[in-house]
Amino acid sequence: MKLTAKLVDIGTREVLLHIDDSRNIGVLPGDRIQILNEVTGVSVAAFIDTTSTLLPKGTIGIYKVTNERLQLEDGVAVEVRKAERPVTLDYIKKKMDGQHLTKEETYAVIRDVVSDNLSPAELTAYITACYINEMDMDEVEHLTRAMVDTGERLTFHAHPIVDKHSIGGVPGNKISLLVVPIIAASGLKIPKTSSRAITGAGGTADLMEVLAPVDFSASEVQRMTERVGGVIVWGGATNIAPADDKIIIQEYPFRIDARGQMLASVMAKKYAVGADLVVIDIPVGAHAKVATIQEGKKLARDFIELGDRLNMQVECALTYGDSPVGRSIGPNLEVMEALRILEGGESPGSLLQKSVAIAGMALEMSGKAARGMGAQMAEDILKKGDALKKFRQIIEIQGGDPKIRSDDIVPGKYQFVVNAPTSGYVIELNNRSLISLARTAGAPHDRGAGVLLHAKKGSRVEKGQPIFTIYADRNWRLQKALEEGRQLMPVVVEGMLLDRVPHDTRWS
Amino acid sequence: MKLTAKLVDIGTREVLLHIDDSRNIGVLPGDRIQILNEVTGVSVAAFIDTTSTLLPKGTIGIYKVTNERLQLEDGVAVEVRKAERPVTLDYIKKKMDGQHLTKEETYAVIRDVVSDNLSPAELTAYITACYINEMDMDEVEHLTRAMVDTGERLTFHAHPIVDKHSIGGVPGNKISLLVVPIIAASGLKIPKTSSRAITGAGGTADLMEVLAPVDFSASEVQRMTERVGGVIVWGGATNIAPADDKIIIQEYPFRIDARGQMLASVMAKKYAVGADLVVIDIPVGAHAKVATIQEGKKLARDFIELGDRLNMQVECALTYGDSPVGRSIGPNLEVMEALRILEGGESPGSLLQKSVAIAGMALEMSGKAARGMGAQMAEDILKKGDALKKFRQIIEIQGGDPKIRSDDIVPGKYQFVVNAPTSGYVIELNNRSLISLARTAGAPHDRGAGVLLHAKKGSRVEKGQPIFTIYADRNWRLQKALEEGRQLMPVVVEGMLLDRVPHDTRWS
Repeated sequence: MKLTAKLVDIGTREVLLHIDDSRNIGVLPGDRIQILNEVTGVSVAAFIDTTSTLLPKGTIGIYKVTNERLQLEDGVAVEVRKAERPVTLDYIKKKMDGQHLTKEETYAVIRDVVSDNLSPAELTAYITACYINEMDMDEVEHLTRAMVDTGERLTFHAHPIVDKHSIGGVPGNKISLLVVPIIAASGLKIPKTSSRAITGAGGTADLMEVLAPVDFSASEVQRMTERVGGVIVWGGATNIAPADDKIIIQEYPFRIDARGQMLASVMAKKYAVGADLVVIDIPVGAHAKVATIQEGKKLARDFIELGDRLNMQVECALTYGDSPVGRSIGPNLEVMEALRILEGGESPGSLLQKSVAIAGMALEMSGKAARGMGAQMAEDILKKGDALKKFRQIIEIQGGDPKIRSDDIVPGKYQFVVNAPTSGYVIELNNRSLISLARTAGAPHDRGAGVLLHAKKGSRVEKGQPIFTIYADRNWRLQKALEEGRQLMPVVVEGMLLDRVPHDTRWS
Repeated sequence: MKLTAKLVDIGTREVLLHIDDSRNIGVLPGDRIQILNEVTGVSVAAFIDTTSTLLPKGTIGIYKVTNERLQLEDGVAVEVRKAERPVTLDYIKKKMDGQHLTKEETYAVIRDVVSDNLSPAELTAYITACYINEMDMDEVEHLTRAMVDTGERLTFHAHPIVDKHSIGGVPGNKISLLVVPIIAASGLKIPKTSSRAITGAGGTADLMEVLAPVDFSASEVQRMTERVGGVIVWGGATNIAPADDKIIIQEYPFRIDARGQMLASVMAKKYAVGADLVVIDIPVGAHAKVATIQEGKKLARDFIELGDRLNMQVECALTYGDSPVGRSIGPNLEVMEALRILEGGESPGSLLQKSVAIAGMALEMSGKAARGMGAQMAEDILKKGDALKKFRQIIEIQGGDPKIRSDDIVPGKYQFVVNAPTSGYVIELNNRSLISLARTAGAPHDRGAGVLLHAKKGSRVEKGQPIFTIYADRNWRLQKALEEGRQLMPVVVEGMLLDRVPHDTRWS
C-alpha cells in the first residue's frame, strides 16, 4: 500500500505505523515491512512499531537508521508491503530443535546479523539455542569463517604475523601494553585489536586511550603495523568481524559466554588480521571464567584445533586467575604501572612475569628464541629499553605523545586509603568485588578512578598498615565506592572479622 | 547523574541518551537506567538507546510509554542512575542451564513480563530456554497460575461455568459461533474469550467482529455472561492473563508453540474466567499442529492433568485436522456459513457435526445430557432454533444488530472461480496454502476476502466444474491471490497435472 513518509529522528532500524495501516498490510509489531523509494528504486526492510495516536492513518514514521539507505524526503509517498520472512529464522529454529547447522546456514545467519536483518530478540534466540545446544567444531569453524568473511581483513605481505588474546575475567590484566611492544621490538609484527570494558574496569582499548587515540580503520591498522611493527587499537572502530560485537551485546544481559561463540569470537579476530602465530592466555581460578586446570586444558585444545582448521598455529597459556595481575585496576593506574615496568622503575612482580612469559611463547613459536628461552629473551628486550622505545613509536604513530612518562599520568584526586583492620596474611583478593569497586569509583569512564593494591595475596600485613587505596575523579563517586567497599570486602586479612552480630539480634 | 528531560513521542518503554552520558553512567544500549521524578518521588526503569547526534549531552529523551508513570514535564531536571539488574535474568539463565524453576522464580519472571521489565530479547531467551529445556508439569502449573494471578479474573456466583478451546491450525474452524450459543441456550454459562488471527485467515474474534463489537473489559464480559449466558469476545481487550499475549508475540517469528507454554496459555485463560468444565479441541493431521493420534493423546493427557491440578474438569476431542472445517475461510464467508446452519438453511456437513460433538461433550460433562446423548441434545437445540435465538441475544448484548441474517452478509465483490482442470476425486485440500491464499486476498482485515470451497476432500468433480472461489474486497488483492494460487495449488484433483516441463528443458 501507499503511505506518506514522515522522518523521525530515532537511531534504530524501525518504522512507525498506524495500527489500522499495520492491520491492513497484515503485519504485527516486530514484523518486517519492505519500503520502496520509487525515485531511486532502493528498497529496505525495517521492523515495525505501531501507534494509534502518534501518527495519522496513511503516514509512516521512518527512523533515522532506516532512512540511511532509503534516502526519502519528508512527505513523499512510499510503497510499503509485508516483507518476506527471513529464511534464517528457520535455521535458528533448526538449532533450537537440536540439529546442527550447515556452513551455508551459518553464513546466512551471520550475514543477517551484520546487516541488522534479525531483531535483537531473534539474535538472542540464536545465541540461546547455540548456548543450550552446543555447536560442534564444524559449526564453530563455519561461524568463525562467516564472521571473518562478513567484515574487513588485513593482508600483510611479510610473515609471520603474531597475535595474542586473553579470555578475560581477571582485573588489572594490562599485559598487552608490555607484550605488544616486546613482540614488535623483536622484529615481529603484531596488529593488536582489543576491546573496551563491558563489565570490567578497563579493557586494553580503554587503557591505551590514556596514551593515544585507538579508533582506526582496518587499513590504518595495517599501515601503522607495517610501519612500526605493532599497534594497540580498539577493534570496535574497525570493521573486523562486526557480527561478533552484535552477538556480545546480546549475550551480556545473561552473562553467558557460550563456548562455541567465544572460540569463534576470539579466533575470527585473529584470522581476520592475518595472524599466523597466536598465544591465548587462559586465566584459571575459582573467581575466573575458567574454574579448573582440566577445564582450561579442554578449552586450550579447542583453541588449538580451531587454529589448525584455520591454518593458524595456536599455543595457550594457563595462567593464575584468582587475583589481579599486578597492583592496579583502572585506566590511569594500570597505564602508570605498565609504563613504570617498561621504564625499568618497578620491582619485578606478577605483571612482569606474566608479560614476558606470554611474549616469550610467541618469540619461541616464531623461531626468534629457542624453545625454553623465550621468556628470557622477552625480559632482555624489556631490560635493554627496546620495548619502551618501541612502545613510544606505537604511541606516536597512533597520534599520542611519545615523550610521556609514567610520572606524567595522575590517578584520581579523590583518594581513600583502606588500612588492615588486624594483623595477618592477606588470604583473599576478590576479583569481582575489586572490579565492582573500581567501576563504582568511575572506571573506565573516569580514567583516574580505580583501586591500587598495597598488599598482594599471601603477603603479611600489620594492623593499621594500608592494604589498598581507592581513587576517583569525582568526590561523590568516591563516597559511593566507599559505601560499596564496606559491603563487598574485596580484600580479606586472615583473622579479620567478617561480620558482627549486634546485641539485640535474636536467633530466628 | 542529573539530566534534562526531553519528551519524545515514541510508544516504547525506552529513553535516549547521548553516548557520552551513557558511558559516564556506565550503561550500554539495552541496559536499564532508573529515572527519578524528584517532584513526585516516582521512579521508573527504562531501557536505553544511545545517540551521538540526536540529543545534546546532558539531556535525556524520554519516550511516551516511559513517561506514563513518570509524568515529567519537558525541560525539567531528572536524576538518573544505572538500574539494578533484574534478578529474573538469573532465573532465565538457570533455565538455559537446564535446571527447573521454582514457583517463586516463575512468578517473578511473569511479573517482570507483565510490567515490561524484560526486553523482548530477554523474554525471547526465556521462551527459547523453555522450548529447548522443556518445563515439567510443576513448572507448567506455576506458569499457568502466575499468568492468571498477574491479570484480572472473573468470579461467577452460579456454577458450573463452561469453556472450550481449539488449539488451532485448521482453517475455517468457526465452531465457536455454534458451540457458544448451543451451550448458552442449554442454560449453562460460557464466557468465551478468543483470539484474533496472527498467522491465520481469521480468529474467532475476527469472525465475531463481523456481527458485533468484541472489545470488552473483564467485568463487562462477566456482566454480559450473567445476563445472556455467553459471549464471544476478544481476549486481548480484557486484562486476562496479559503475560500470555506478550509471550505469543515473541514466539511468533519462529512459529514455535512450545508444549508447556501452550498448555499454560490455554489453561490460564480458562482458569481466569472461572471455568469448571473445559472441552479442548485437538485437530490431528499431517497438516495440523498435532500430526498423529498418539501425539494428540499425549497432549490430551497433559491438558487433563493440568486441569486436575487447577480443579477444572477437562475433556479433549481429537478431531480431523487435515482439511478445513466447513466450506469457507475468511471472516464474512465463515460467518455466513455459521449463520446459515443456525438458521437451518445449510445441509449438514463437517461444521455441524464437529460443533454438536464439541457442544455435546460439555452438555454431558455438566450433566445436562446423559453420557452418549450430548451431541443429539446439541443438535436438537440447534434444530429447534434455540441456538439462533441465543446467538441473537449475544450479538445484541455485545452491541450488534440482533436481526442480522446470513443473507445480509456479503462476500468480497471481486471474485474468481477456479474450475477443475480435469475430472477426478479431490485428493488434497492443503490447509497452509488455503490460509495463505485467503490472507493474500485480504483476510482477516478485508472481511469479504477469503476462499469458498465447492468440492470437499474425497468428492468427485468433473473437468470444468467449479472447485473453489476466491473472494476479495479489492481488485489488486484478488490479482495477487490469483498469482499465488497458481504457485500453491491448494486443491489437488486426482490425475491433475502438477507441473509441465517445457520442450527446451534439458536433463541436467
